[in-house]
Amino acid sequence: MTALSFTVKATEGKARLGRIETAHGPADTPIFMPVGTAATVKAMTPDSVRATGAQIVLGNTYHLMLRPSAERIARLGGLHRFMGWSGPILTDSGGYQVMSLSKLRKLTEEGVTFQSHIDGSRHLLTPERSMEIQDLLDATITMAFDECTPYPAERQTVAESMRMSMRWAERSRAAFRPRPGYGLFGICQGGVHGDLRAESVAALTAIGFEGYAVGGLAVGEPQDEMFRVLDETCPLLPADRPRYLMGVGKPEDIVGAVLRGIDMFDCVMPTRSGRTAQGFTRRGEVNLRNARHRDDPRPLDSACSCPACTSFSRAYLHHLVRAEEILGAMLLTWHNIQYYQDLMAGLRAAIGEQRLAAFVTDFHTTRGLGDIEPV
Amino acid sequence: MTALSFTVKATEGKARLGRIETAHGPADTPIFMPVGTAATVKAMTPDSVRATGAQIVLGNTYHLMLRPSAERIARLGGLHRFMGWSGPILTDSGGYQVMSLSKLRKLTEEGVTFQSHIDGSRHLLTPERSMEIQDLLDATITMAFDECTPYPAERQTVAESMRMSMRWAERSRAAFRPRPGYGLFGICQGGVHGDLRAESVAALTAIGFEGYAVGGLAVGEPQDEMFRVLDETCPLLPADRPRYLMGVGKPEDIVGAVLRGIDMFDCVMPTRSGRTAQGFTRRGEVNLRNARHRDDPRPLDSACSCPACTSFSRAYLHHLVRAEEILGAMLLTWHNIQYYQDLMAGLRAAIGEQRLAAFVTDFHTTRGLGDIEPV
Ligand SMILES: [Zn+2]
Ligand SMILES: [Zn+2]
Repeated sequence: MTALSFTVKATEGKARLGRIETAHGPADTPIFMPVGTAATVKAMTPDSVRATGAQIVLGNTYHLMLRPSAERIARLGGLHRFMGWSGPILTDSGGYQVMSLSKLRKLTEEGVTFQSHIDGSRHLLTPERSMEIQDLLDATITMAFDECTPYPAERQTVAESMRMSMRWAERSRAAFRPRPGYGLFGICQGGVHGDLRAESVAALTAIGFEGYAVGGLAVGEPQDEMFRVLDETCPLLPADRPRYLMGVGKPEDIVGAVLRGIDMFDCVMPTRSGRTAQGFTRRGEVNLRNARHRDDPRPLDSACSCPACTSFSRAYLHHLVRAEEILGAMLLTWHNIQYYQDLMAGLRAAIGEQRLAAFVTDFHTTRGLGDIEPV
Repeated sequence: MTALSFTVKATEGKARLGRIETAHGPADTPIFMPVGTAATVKAMTPDSVRATGAQIVLGNTYHLMLRPSAERIARLGGLHRFMGWSGPILTDSGGYQVMSLSKLRKLTEEGVTFQSHIDGSRHLLTPERSMEIQDLLDATITMAFDECTPYPAERQTVAESMRMSMRWAERSRAAFRPRPGYGLFGICQGGVHGDLRAESVAALTAIGFEGYAVGGLAVGEPQDEMFRVLDETCPLLPADRPRYLMGVGKPEDIVGAVLRGIDMFDCVMPTRSGRTAQGFTRRGEVNLRNARHRDDPRPLDSACSCPACTSFSRAYLHHLVRAEEILGAMLLTWHNIQYYQDLMAGLRAAIGEQRLAAFVTDFHTTRGLGDIEPV
């Protein structure tokens, strides 16, 4: 029985070009995973998600366990069939969202008891139950159950939280049911403290996982703090396993993290921004609600191949946003996911051709230009 | 200079199989036109609309003149380019919606003055201005400006309203700018009064139009009233021009109207229902919000080829509706338009093969079965 595998095909500095082979197909790294919270990447069909080049999507254990429930999804054939996505799916453990979204939660060594934010029903989430739920969902990549330490927090709080997460990581490993082409990822905690991060990595690698995530970042700390933690932590992580920076992030965060050896990313930003009139372009973010786009016949991003850019003008996107048309959210979401996938494809090609440094310089230069001049 | 043309290819009873040839391509009749109120068929991309088999869509003069404005759409290359729809577009005259949606409206022989429901701005809509707006939009089929008589109304009110609409029809014809492959349709009024309908048809045919619409129906009258008016009115309309029943309707209304000689239809029902969890199926309408679908692995309509039915279960659609996911509205809208297009394709094939009577019997029998039994 062989778990999912990971191969590093090329490196440039600390950056890695790689491929994860799973039971549901490959995932080429560095990779961005669109977020499909409630078994749908919001405002996108699975076909559209695939058309952007996305290979793997993320599902949220907390949302799915509450509605429609993991047992129901299992009866209906698993999450892949339920949501019509045949590629790999990574599910989070529920630990992060139960603390940020649920009501009346109580954290003990055993796990978290909480009330659903949807109907007030009571639930218990433990490492064992999180593994069971992710198994019922048939997640290709299962995340160990952890506590995402609040930021900012006292060092002592961070240390105690991290150590409990490491005990939970061991329980997660024990409860995880191995299957060919599937895998379990451990999550490194320790806040912004290098020694606690090192302690966490040592605990995780002693247990052994198919991949390693860096958690507890992108929670409000400055970018240079995050990069410093990655500078200190990535070299400690096993070179032959994929590294996943959870919940990141802005395009410049992703580029900086790839330079530091991260392979996998997820973030609600492209999808959420698509529903609030924000478009990511090679020259930075654009607010389509702004009146400057009212008469603009040009595409949102002339270098983009998505339907929003090849078939429609900024003027039309502006109109859809102003008229609160669903198509506005659909097109901008599609475009934003396309932008993220293009960015990742560009990073992969650059690493493969040993020109990552030039790619990154060009990335920052083009963003620095700012949006095109108004018509 | 030749206007759009219409050819009747086959008939069965009063029902006609035909084709309209326009500057923007053909439209095979009987045809259903999805409504694209604000330059978008809500929750659909133009590609998806085309994929259902739809050949022509409708735009609303009232909405578009207020936002983004006809002049802006003209500057941006016309409505086809603006909304990414290369096929024929029919625009209504604005007369109906100005009376139902605007504020502080005042109707005179000249036209209607009103305040925008969006920003309170003041506007004047006349037959001449309506023709100018539809020209700026580059509508393939322009509708004459008329007053949709309220229902119910006194006979005298109906008669006076109809006669003013006929004077407006003459002014519309005079103001319309003919172009090859384009056309202007007159609108018959007269409420449920056969003699007033006849007087209206006589006035319209004396003016001469590329097509004739029956207006002022589907405004609350019983179905048998509507069918009686069609029984009396359709035989009076020129046989060599397309006939359009405005704002209709439910599947059984469409089937009954095709049997009475109507060629064209539009209605918000499939799109609006798609945003309120209603799915049209061969066995009648289904409310996907209902808990009976919660564990149902079967498609919404097993005979349907749309993505909602081929890729997803009722359980998934139910989940999307309950979670208020945009994808729910997207998939149900797609399905409903597909259902309407399949119905029209079925009617066309049946007329072409002289088996319309059997088709209609089967249509009613299948609907009479009601929804499939719960699992
Ligand atoms: Zn784009
Ligand atoms: Zn369908």
